Amino acid sequence: MTAEILNGREIAKDYRAGLAEEVEKLKSKGITPNLTVVIAGNDGASLSYVRSKNKAAEKIGMTSDIVHLDEDASEEDVLNEVKRLNNDDAVHGILVQVPLPDQVDENKVLEAISPEKDVDGFSPVNIGRLYTGQRTFVPCTPLGIMELLKHTGSLEGKEVAVIGRSHIVGQPVAKLLIDQNATVTVMHSRTKDMVEKLKNFDVVVSAVGKPGLVKGSDLKEGAIVIDVGNTMVDDKLVGDVDYDSAAEVASHITPVPGGVGPLTITMVLNNTLLAAKWNKGIE
Amino acid sequence: MTAEILNGREIAKDYRAGLAEEVEKLKSKGITPNLTVVIAGNDGASLSYVRSKNKAAEKIGMTSDIVHLDEDASEEDVLNEVKRLNNDDAVHGILVQVPLPDQVDENKVLEAISPEKDVDGFSPVNIGRLYTGQRTFVPCTPLGIMELLKHTGSLEGKEVAVIGRSHIVGQPVAKLLIDQNATVTVMHSRTKDMVEKLKNFDVVVSAVGKPGLVKGSDLKEGAIVIDVGNTMVDDKLVGDVDYDSAAEVASHITPVPGGVGPLTITMVLNNTLLAAKWNKGIE
Repeated sequence: MTAEILNGREIAKDYRAGLAEEVEKLKSKGITPNLTVVIAGNDGASLSYVRSKNKAAEKIGMTSDIVHLDEDASEEDVLNEVKRLNNDDAVHGILVQVPLPDQVDENKVLEAISPEKDVDGFSPVNIGRLYTGQRTFVPCTPLGIMELLKHTGSLEGKEVAVIGRSHIVGQPVAKLLIDQNATVTVMHSRTKDMVEKLKNFDVVVSAVGKPGLVKGSDLKEGAIVIDVGNTMVDDKLVGDVDYDSAAEVASHITPVPGGVGPLTITMVLNNTLLAAKWNKGIE
Repeated sequence: MTAEILNGREIAKDYRAGLAEEVEKLKSKGITPNLTVVIAGNDGASLSYVRSKNKAAEKIGMTSDIVHLDEDASEEDVLNEVKRLNNDDAVHGILVQVPLPDQVDENKVLEAISPEKDVDGFSPVNIGRLYTGQRTFVPCTPLGIMELLKHTGSLEGKEVAVIGRSHIVGQPVAKLLIDQNATVTVMHSRTKDMVEKLKNFDVVVSAVGKPGLVKGSDLKEGAIVIDVGNTMVDDKLVGDVDYDSAAEVASHITPVPGGVGPLTITMVLNNTLLAAKWNKGIE
């Protein structure tokens, strides 16, 4: 079997076209969705990531601002900016780029973002709403993974292995998969004979950042493979899955780069659009 | 193999003795932990459950009150009581007995409880704190299950099947088990060949309310069995597990009644004690 490629760039492009239409409709009602990103410090990768979100928002007709604080910004400085943005009616979505400088308590800042503007879905109340089945902003990478999986058919009754247990990817995507009636096993560094077990699974989602962790020979014939790994190796972005061998066995596979990544940013835009709508009582 | 019985009544008794000592210490500092339970309506089972929590709190030296509203109490009535208790410094833990009458939005009420007094751990912000690894009130049944499992040895590397995906038991206990380095599979009504799969698991936690769902012949030799089911059948409380056959195969098993149940109420007390301590800045 040679796998069908889940082309994240193409899927994201189509999805963003739909968002752009909705932005247009909102604008005709006098609402221009705005995404504001807070960053502290000058980490190159973070800055470039923030700028790409910024551009992506503008490209679909939203406005987008960057609040750039110094590397030595105090916790109070960051909290004050967040409070100011919480109270600014023109701002619909707020992102705080992590990691924050050491002197700033990340949890405290994430808790300070108004839940109604927390488009990353990382504030505790939004995570709690996710787990209790209430309306919320679903974290962007898990939501992007679910969008990719829509292109592979129903998940009902499928056996899914989620490798990685972070609260950013592994655990929330497990929750979303369970909601789709998949049977989900969460694996991690302490799982016994992990790779050997993968043969039992219809879908493998790997989100640990270990290049070469999963090989084609580890997979069930026809498995669906979602590779969330993104590790820099010799200036190249590399996933957790050995793509060439896996593509021989899988029915569907995401490349790295160009798989999950474009969907993550797309879902930031998706959530910002929702924030602007919900703010005006539009469902 | 004949299983060791995980005697919830005995384990709860020992645990509560430890809590009573801590309550005594707090009282010597002038702090008397108080648990207040809000109930609306006259459902017999709910009333009896509320009274048993009440008594259990008093038995370990806490004070405990019941706020009893009518069956036709409005949402505003319930919310007003919750607000009053949030602002009452003498109240450390607040429980709202569910189900609430139809005219009252349960999620709205649970969100209204101050997170610092939400000893059931059901408010979204506390659930979010659980999933992000922050200090919180862990929901009582999952916490009680983990206490029972402490009597069976380390969970590291164990394969655990959690049957049931509710946000009250199945999903949070999966999260706690993952934190203990177990490899966890969440199963449910849409899982294919569920019962046949159980032979692969070292621990089975069943929380669905289907008497006779799990039989001894379904289990791996030496499995640990936690039965969270409690269904009334001919005036008798019955679990999900066929106890007699399972006890022949399991290494440890919880009876119903007298297994998980006593630990659930114990953990309400545990969380009330924590609420009283944290309120005074005691860790």
